[in-house]
Amino acid sequence: MLVNKLLGNCVWKCNKPKRIFYHVVRSISSQSSFKAADLQIEFCTPDQLKKKPSVSDLVFGKHFTDHMLEIHWDATSGWGQPRITPFHDLRMHPAAKVLHYSVELFEGMKAFRGIDDEIRLFRPDKNMERMNRTAARSSLPTFEGTELIEVLKKLVSIDQEWVPHAESSSLYLRPTLIGTEPTLGVQQPKEALLFIIMSPVGPYFSSGFKPVSLLADPQFVRAWPGGCGMMKMGSNYGPTLAIQKVAENKGLQQVLWLFGPDHRITEVGAMNLMVFLDKGNGEKELVTPPLDGLILPGVTRDSLLGLAREWNEFTVSERDITMAEIISAEQQGKLLEIFGAGTAAVVTPVGEIHYGDKIIKIPTMDHEKPLNQKFFKTITDIQYGRVQHSWSIPIE
Amino acid sequence: MLVNKLLGNCVWKCNKPKRIFYHVVRSISSQSSFKAADLQIEFCTPDQLKKKPSVSDLVFGKHFTDHMLEIHWDATSGWGQPRITPFHDLRMHPAAKVLHYSVELFEGMKAFRGIDDEIRLFRPDKNMERMNRTAARSSLPTFEGTELIEVLKKLVSIDQEWVPHAESSSLYLRPTLIGTEPTLGVQQPKEALLFIIMSPVGPYFSSGFKPVSLLADPQFVRAWPGGCGMMKMGSNYGPTLAIQKVAENKGLQQVLWLFGPDHRITEVGAMNLMVFLDKGNGEKELVTPPLDGLILPGVTRDSLLGLAREWNEFTVSERDITMAEIISAEQQGKLLEIFGAGTAAVVTPVGEIHYGDKIIKIPTMDHEKPLNQKFFKTITDIQYGRVQHSWSIPIE
Repeated sequence: MLVNKLLGNCVWKCNKPKRIFYHVVRSISSQSSFKAADLQIEFCTPDQLKKKPSVSDLVFGKHFTDHMLEIHWDATSGWGQPRITPFHDLRMHPAAKVLHYSVELFEGMKAFRGIDDEIRLFRPDKNMERMNRTAARSSLPTFEGTELIEVLKKLVSIDQEWVPHAESSSLYLRPTLIGTEPTLGVQQPKEALLFIIMSPVGPYFSSGFKPVSLLADPQFVRAWPGGCGMMKMGSNYGPTLAIQKVAENKGLQQVLWLFGPDHRITEVGAMNLMVFLDKGNGEKELVTPPLDGLILPGVTRDSLLGLAREWNEFTVSERDITMAEIISAEQQGKLLEIFGAGTAAVVTPVGEIHYGDKIIKIPTMDHEKPLNQKFFKTITDIQYGRVQHSWSIPIE
Repeated sequence: MLVNKLLGNCVWKCNKPKRIFYHVVRSISSQSSFKAADLQIEFCTPDQLKKKPSVSDLVFGKHFTDHMLEIHWDATSGWGQPRITPFHDLRMHPAAKVLHYSVELFEGMKAFRGIDDEIRLFRPDKNMERMNRTAARSSLPTFEGTELIEVLKKLVSIDQEWVPHAESSSLYLRPTLIGTEPTLGVQQPKEALLFIIMSPVGPYFSSGFKPVSLLADPQFVRAWPGGCGMMKMGSNYGPTLAIQKVAENKGLQQVLWLFGPDHRITEVGAMNLMVFLDKGNGEKELVTPPLDGLILPGVTRDSLLGLAREWNEFTVSERDITMAEIISAEQQGKLLEIFGAGTAAVVTPVGEIHYGDKIIKIPTMDHEKPLNQKFFKTITDIQYGRVQHSWSIPIE
């Protein structure tokens, strides 16, 4: 699937690419995996335990739990034993490849404390699939996703008191994989470290859903054909920070990433994007850009598409949508909603897009029953155990 | 200049971009700089000194000198004092932004021991300019380049016995700047670390110049208009490692990066690229792709162009050149040389390009007096003090 996503959608014709790259991916993927059964645990001493912040003080990714997970890999002996230890600083050679050549990737997932006090993960298998795809493309070692889920469950279980006892809050999980070989050659790393840290997070919208304003400026390009836009690698994020600042300096919250001479919309900030259109005659259409190599295959994106297809109440389209179409729909009163879709907030309603001299207003939250809120309720009902669903995986 | 390079060459038209980005750059650049006068030095104890490898054992970026430089920065108090200390591992919070979002950049420079035993740097001001441009684009703090050159000279001076006493070897210098703030928000870092490590390196071509073979496959794209291809940031390198492996798996040494439907050549591996053409009637032309936002503004590239213009023996062109033109020139016997230009090897002759089903042979080293070798001799004469030149800066 990686190979199809990576190579199947080249804008330019190429001669015989598919086999070549597949070979590379396979040669990396054939490394054996670590095993959850080998897990070693070193518990914190009582004096190492940290004070938990109150839910109202939570800031995304600022506080971390008492323990973390580490698994070393090297090209000679493969993966080492998974180790859960007290949370600690990493010790890193200053020539480690991650610090020079961005040999790094991550995942974003959450653990939720349900209304029944049961702790659940949300579709962790999807994160593991994507993490392995990104690892292969990043020249980092792959592994068995089921094994990492097992040790992750154990890690969450050990720090379970860090999963907030407040509905709408959760424990953010950050699996990370970095190249640690201490040499400066621009080459595939022979040493790597997989680690997981965890951070309690509050509700993304602490005082109700407030639609965000976006900067849409075609001069800034997040991803391109033949690049890595569909991978969750660090190098997709660093270059965006200055552009996010451009938006903030204009009083806007996020960047709407456009692509191509026709200004197709691709992503918003670090989220996928969905547009809900009135097609006339009582027909509606939910549109999201297709997985053409420019788009991160988000777990929330996939979940919302799955729910919408199950509901079968409107057309669900994975297709290109341009700024011209957005503007035209808005002018005709047919632009119902635009919202981001991601792990952090599930949905993020969009209220305005600033595009050249135009400000496009979107009535995303002005309907009686916004689609994005129906999605939010359905997903969080599953995440917090108010509804039983196969996507929600108890940790024990 | 950053702003012109960054924004002046958009492929797609944009409305009024230049002022916006300039504002961001300025707001970052207005941070004050550290001062060389504040330098603190902690020397190694005798037992901390490492054994120096013999020149024949040198591998690029594998051995490091006894000391390193560090300068901390935070958004509240700005830059701290530069500190030279014994070479040591870095201690890093596992949420440091560099490990997740590739908030990182580097430079590559060298110190040379001249025939007069004087140690010299080569055009360090050019590296400082580029480092600051990249810092601004990376949301990392900028500084006074002259101040960093001063502390760098001191660092080289302290470890001067690590500058090989062998002509054609040198001490590779790696200034690096990373975002260290230990939070997971996808935001500009409020903490950073600038460090410099140094590694003795042998001759790039230890047994004479051997032309390399390149893979030219348009499905793999290094950089894009509106992206950061002209910046020396880590995120330009990580995604290339797997593609380099594709080339190696085909028995080739490097990747020739193409761009656009007309397969323009852009860079080779991590070097700039030059093509030397016979135009007929005794006219010759040296061509290198223009600094259009896709191309790293290499110091060696700039130096070779400067020399060539000074010599005034052939046309010097910064212009696009496509694979079709390369093939046509080769078929007419007008393709004289292709070579990479970079700090590591000065010039890297290219012998073959594998492009789809074609293998294009280039007689780069088959002339009596190859241009690339004239460049090599001229540059290394300056670097090793055989010729006095303003580009060569003694450390004391």
